[in-house]
Amino acid sequence: MDEHAQTGWLSRLISRRAVLTTTAVGLTAPAVATSGFVAPRSAAVAQAGTVKKVTIYAEALPGNLYGYGLEPGKATIPGPTLEVYEGDTLEITLVNNTDRRMSIHPHGVDYSTDSDGAPLNNSFNNPGETRVYTWRTREMTSAGDGSRRFMPGSAGYWHYHDHAMGTDHGTLGIARGLYGALVVRRRGDLLPDKQFVVVFNEMSINNQVAPNTPIFEADLGQRVEWIAIGHGNQFHTFHLHAHRWADNRTGMLEGPADPSQVIDNKDLNPGSSFGFQVIAGEGVGPGAWMYHCHVQTHSETGMSGIFLVRNADGTMPAGAQEAIDRFRGHPHGSADPGAATAPTQQHGHH
Amino acid sequence: MDEHAQTGWLSRLISRRAVLTTTAVGLTAPAVATSGFVAPRSAAVAQAGTVKKVTIYAEALPGNLYGYGLEPGKATIPGPTLEVYEGDTLEITLVNNTDRRMSIHPHGVDYSTDSDGAPLNNSFNNPGETRVYTWRTREMTSAGDGSRRFMPGSAGYWHYHDHAMGTDHGTLGIARGLYGALVVRRRGDLLPDKQFVVVFNEMSINNQVAPNTPIFEADLGQRVEWIAIGHGNQFHTFHLHAHRWADNRTGMLEGPADPSQVIDNKDLNPGSSFGFQVIAGEGVGPGAWMYHCHVQTHSETGMSGIFLVRNADGTMPAGAQEAIDRFRGHPHGSADPGAATAPTQQHGHH
Amino acid sequence: MDEHAQTGWLSRLISRRAVLTTTAVGLTAPAVATSGFVAPRSAAVAQAGTVKKVTIYAEALPGNLYGYGLEPGKATIPGPTLEVYEGDTLEITLVNNTDRRMSIHPHGVDYSTDSDGAPLNNSFNNPGETRVYTWRTREMTSAGDGSRRFMPGSAGYWHYHDHAMGTDHGTLGIARGLYGALVVRRRGDLLPDKQFVVVFNEMSINNQVAPNTPIFEADLGQRVEWIAIGHGNQFHTFHLHAHRWADNRTGMLEGPADPSQVIDNKDLNPGSSFGFQVIAGEGVGPGAWMYHCHVQTHSETGMSGIFLVRNADGTMPAGAQEAIDRFRGHPHGSADPGAATAPTQQHGHH
Repeated sequence: MDEHAQTGWLSRLISRRAVLTTTAVGLTAPAVATSGFVAPRSAAVAQAGTVKKVTIYAEALPGNLYGYGLEPGKATIPGPTLEVYEGDTLEITLVNNTDRRMSIHPHGVDYSTDSDGAPLNNSFNNPGETRVYTWRTREMTSAGDGSRRFMPGSAGYWHYHDHAMGTDHGTLGIARGLYGALVVRRRGDLLPDKQFVVVFNEMSINNQVAPNTPIFEADLGQRVEWIAIGHGNQFHTFHLHAHRWADNRTGMLEGPADPSQVIDNKDLNPGSSFGFQVIAGEGVGPGAWMYHCHVQTHSETGMSGIFLVRNADGTMPAGAQEAIDRFRGHPHGSADPGAATAPTQQHGHH
Repeated sequence: MDEHAQTGWLSRLISRRAVLTTTAVGLTAPAVATSGFVAPRSAAVAQAGTVKKVTIYAEALPGNLYGYGLEPGKATIPGPTLEVYEGDTLEITLVNNTDRRMSIHPHGVDYSTDSDGAPLNNSFNNPGETRVYTWRTREMTSAGDGSRRFMPGSAGYWHYHDHAMGTDHGTLGIARGLYGALVVRRRGDLLPDKQFVVVFNEMSINNQVAPNTPIFEADLGQRVEWIAIGHGNQFHTFHLHAHRWADNRTGMLEGPADPSQVIDNKDLNPGSSFGFQVIAGEGVGPGAWMYHCHVQTHSETGMSGIFLVRNADGTMPAGAQEAIDRFRGHPHGSADPGAATAPTQQHGHH
Repeated sequence: MDEHAQTGWLSRLISRRAVLTTTAVGLTAPAVATSGFVAPRSAAVAQAGTVKKVTIYAEALPGNLYGYGLEPGKATIPGPTLEVYEGDTLEITLVNNTDRRMSIHPHGVDYSTDSDGAPLNNSFNNPGETRVYTWRTREMTSAGDGSRRFMPGSAGYWHYHDHAMGTDHGTLGIARGLYGALVVRRRGDLLPDKQFVVVFNEMSINNQVAPNTPIFEADLGQRVEWIAIGHGNQFHTFHLHAHRWADNRTGMLEGPADPSQVIDNKDLNPGSSFGFQVIAGEGVGPGAWMYHCHVQTHSETGMSGIFLVRNADGTMPAGAQEAIDRFRGHPHGSADPGAATAPTQQHGHH
């Protein structure tokens, strides 16, 4: 790899961080940004919550792809991460700037049939059409039988995706990039310093294949939130080197008696999602750590990327640049050559 | 779709409900029906429990299928849902009215080798043969090490299936419809108003493909229990629109500190099963909600159905009939054309 | 099956048990063997722990296979089970006696980039090379936010494998047998009497296909620990007849309110692992119980074996020998004929 290529890679990283900051101000965790506090976990009583209005633009992207964005001309793959607290409502004005029928369908939240995003319920945007989708969330509520049981609330690492392009299940839209993360937090949840979204979509990561897959960056000791989403027709397993998490809602143990299995490899199949927080480099130090699908042929043909843990002061740790060069210099199979030119999205909490 | 077709569909729904009532009287939750009480959760002491005797008839069905039934000539796919409390014993007299070797093999319960249902243990019915299989259940018991640990009891959303037709693993019997749900409840568990069984079997749902897949019905606010079972050679993910559940034993949170992830999409692979309860339409209202495999080609080729949440008074909600017509009018791939004529089974708790 | 074949089978069993005992003394649970006590669960404070030094030899095996072993000429598939308590460090001297590049990469534990085992970080053994890999473990630590949350510790049923032979992901090494189990225990965990390792690797179990798959043996009432690991390119589900476990870290309920689902069938996909303990034959009695992949074509073509529960006094239960003869007499597809000649590894706690 010559110097020019390296510079190109660095400038891309810098521009990504710029996008990131803009995105964070624009949308990520507005509840925190506007209210400035995190309430202690409330009793299981539904709260009125905030209504957040967001306009999302669906657009064509180079390479025969599509993306969702918060401004015209700013669509990314994955789309913007939407984030609320239990009790909040998201009112999404979806502007369809594509020439195909499409929609937005969420997992994990409450919506009436007209916000289903499914053609079954006649809920989609025709080409050029604008339509409002309303997603509501709630806290857990007593099961009403005098026991300690609760009907679950909405908190979770969820996702949204097209459900109308190409077929009644949005198969074309999903394949071409119309998906993103949706985080619903419970009061008292820990907020991360950084947030990464990894979508195993058919044989790609975020519609990219190695070496063009995302290099996710954090400084040693930062609290990093990973959100993993599966799409397509293949089965996958998400593996992260040198970090692990509890296989539950938050990735942390909810007390010393939490029985959850601790894992570093998890099934990530179509329609499923999960999230967790780790402390970057905790117990292992900085470096270039692999994340990849653990299905062997999948990692071999491009479903592999790098989690770059920098030193605590943000400088490059010894050996990391060499590892990145090694990664980028390797030939990999390319499942979707056009995908390499599409804009991608990353964001953090500051 | 013309008016005649609609009428045909409605009458089919009505006759399904009739079957349902009969089934409920005949078998579902006899512990409740006969004892008339639900005991508070007992201490972790095994109870003598009740011995329930059931006769099951295995029979050929149209379309080269097979089914289990509670009476001759009444076999369904899936077979009858068997339900007991921890501590109870099920004594099953299996009458093989087919011309092939077959058996019944349960998941989750206790049985001696002669009730294994596996040819390995010479445990099967020859053609025309009647054989008794005994399944025992138990409550959790202390691990015996002075800790708070317990060896698990039998409570769960389990299933049963043939283990002898065609091969030593029952591959032919399972493919042709010889499977059903088995529910073992813990004392104090909440009982549902309705109960649906969804079996993702190879590329079908209950050996049907859309638009002939089940339309499961409930009234707004009813407590609905879903039991999902996987079979065959494909991997699947079960997704339900507009409803979600905790990824644990009951689908509810067992207290405010229950760490379980809340999900609306879950892997449903061969031999696995899970169950959960939702309040029909809670927070989202009535309507025709999709349930489907989230593997894109699977949903496209027929692994999709409808959860019809009626108004609280049982009337049809606005737009629901149009959605059903849309669903039934669409062409779908047909993985098993003969399957469309087979009787199917649904049941509820009243 | 003639008498000679049976004798051959019995002598193989006996020699396995011999290997077993040697293995146990050599490595399994050295913390227990050397310290002779199990400490009560400590507060969430990291302990200095013990440094355990182990030399592992990677070697070619007959049938174009490879294995890890604790002595030259003693490589097995799977390799030796490595076992520590949270807080301990494993210092592994890996001697590469093969003529290929290879490494050892662990799941679940802490390691610096130079112990990653990945070519990305230049962490591997060239042919003939010896290299030290250091794996550290830790107890859970407070999340530091004043809540009851904890960042997870290292305890789990993990595994290790090659990450460098053939490709940068160790695809060839894994396919040919370079894998094993890694157990990290929490203080207070129950220790088993017997321990079995089952690796679903592509279309084999421990690189064997039926009827050459392991026959795992225990006496009625013994506490048996199963460790299941997935590898390769296929999806699998692990099913055990007549026994079940909680789907959490230990397989037991961590108190009467533990919400974990109880299961007897679990996804076992590439890179994943889990473990659990059962009491052999509890509630069901002795006998020859099947364990198998529940994907129908996988069980049919060789992914099936036997869990032989002997009588409490170690004698053969009625019908068990006949079942084993039936199993061994059946023709099965052979995915990897050469595999049948490779040494295999089993071990227990005494």
